[in-house]
Amino acid sequence: MTRLSIGFLHPGAMGISLAASAQNSGCTVYWASEGRSKQTHERAAEHGLRDAQTLRALCEVCDVVVSVCPPHAAEEVAAQVRACAFRGLYLDANAISPMRTQRIGREMARVGIAFVDGSIIGGPAWEPRRTWLYLAGTEAGRAAGCFSAGPLETCVVGEEIGKAAALKMCFAAYTKGSTALLCAILAAAEELGVRPELEAQWSRGGSDFARQTQERVRQVTTRAWRFAGEMEEIAATFEQAGLPGGFHAAAADVYRRIAHFKDVETPSLDEVLEALAEAERV
Amino acid sequence: MTRLSIGFLHPGAMGISLAASAQNSGCTVYWASEGRSKQTHERAAEHGLRDAQTLRALCEVCDVVVSVCPPHAAEEVAAQVRACAFRGLYLDANAISPMRTQRIGREMARVGIAFVDGSIIGGPAWEPRRTWLYLAGTEAGRAAGCFSAGPLETCVVGEEIGKAAALKMCFAAYTKGSTALLCAILAAAEELGVRPELEAQWSRGGSDFARQTQERVRQVTTRAWRFAGEMEEIAATFEQAGLPGGFHAAAADVYRRIAHFKDVETPSLDEVLEALAEAERV
Repeated sequence: MTRLSIGFLHPGAMGISLAASAQNSGCTVYWASEGRSKQTHERAAEHGLRDAQTLRALCEVCDVVVSVCPPHAAEEVAAQVRACAFRGLYLDANAISPMRTQRIGREMARVGIAFVDGSIIGGPAWEPRRTWLYLAGTEAGRAAGCFSAGPLETCVVGEEIGKAAALKMCFAAYTKGSTALLCAILAAAEELGVRPELEAQWSRGGSDFARQTQERVRQVTTRAWRFAGEMEEIAATFEQAGLPGGFHAAAADVYRRIAHFKDVETPSLDEVLEALAEAERV
Repeated sequence: MTRLSIGFLHPGAMGISLAASAQNSGCTVYWASEGRSKQTHERAAEHGLRDAQTLRALCEVCDVVVSVCPPHAAEEVAAQVRACAFRGLYLDANAISPMRTQRIGREMARVGIAFVDGSIIGGPAWEPRRTWLYLAGTEAGRAAGCFSAGPLETCVVGEEIGKAAALKMCFAAYTKGSTALLCAILAAAEELGVRPELEAQWSRGGSDFARQTQERVRQVTTRAWRFAGEMEEIAATFEQAGLPGGFHAAAADVYRRIAHFKDVETPSLDEVLEALAEAERV
């Protein structure tokens, strides 16, 4: 059996863990360094990824290309790959709506690229049974084969493009949606002068909920910058399904207000609550 | 010490439990039967409440009047009490925004009625340490005295009118807001054809979350008719505090879609999901 070559666009914290699982599974793993950050360089070097340097070179050498990027960039990355005359299998593993996934799938199919709809549930895949790559499409099994060993779990959910994306949207709708809701609640309670009373009520009967909530609100700040776009994808998905998109439009608003904490070590709760309440007045 | 007379407008499932705690605490408890439903008659008779028959008579005989009604009716009930030339202490225990509570308080003060801002957290108060009546205002201590014994717990949160209401809004923002969010998620997953996969993901590692969510979505239907108004109060409260009101505007939409299950024995999950998805198309 020939070793499959697989390219990752672009190996961030999540992407590099998928790349490592592909290596474990016997694939030769590439990335393209052109225009990428110092951190991405370090990540790729640390895990021994081969540097194809340019996207064009990566597309020439790879059988499979995987896109793992912030939601807003998904179509741009796909378009760049099309422009490189890639003719292998393209796996879009981004947190985007099923409609957008289907649109990208159609564009790829039009130029003869095999398309697989993928979505990731869980954090970076360094331990077994913690991170799932859901896959949909007629070539989903072939994509799953790239991750047959290694800690990443794969799960094929059918042939219909959009199903893996829809599952991700519904799953994240609660995890990230409820965290955004708690951010808004703590900030509103602070503004209304009842946060101590709310936290006391939450703590009745020895419950740890108040402390857990404070931690959730502080810890989410480093990822808020990319959650905002994901919340907009979920809002669009809900509207398309005939359900109200308002929960996640509000969640996007919440995450945008704290997006500037991206590179800040976990800020204090007071700093986060101030940012949540002040953004409106900008 | 003279026995205090206290009147309840109107003894529903929650109000009757407050009335029982007031009886336990030595108050003489009234209601006014005029225009009330057969169920309210039965409830009041069962707990031995004295029937003042009309609101006017109740206002003449009572030292304290307590309003426990659906959010939309709070101002109307207060206006009716003002029209009866009541001059005692008025406790508004409804799930309304601090702004509306303050407005009612100003109207009552204008005609010489002592006003207490109250809010209830928990279900009907039949067991100790399960239901809390939060109270705010200069007369809050006097209102608390009406419930000094009995299972209802009281908690004075200060003199500022609106603080008890604000606390209730923030607390219910999560309990009822997250239930509405889960209703929307299950219905979206159903529409998108990924509910089995979502429930399987939720059930990983032996988690009970999928089953609990199904039960929450089915069980909330009997109370959805009055939650819709409460969600609108929370949305207004958040907007006033400079936070996005969209979470709870969406939650109000969700609860309106299933409000017609008010008098239905717990419907099947399929019936609820169908109602959640179909309302949009009416």
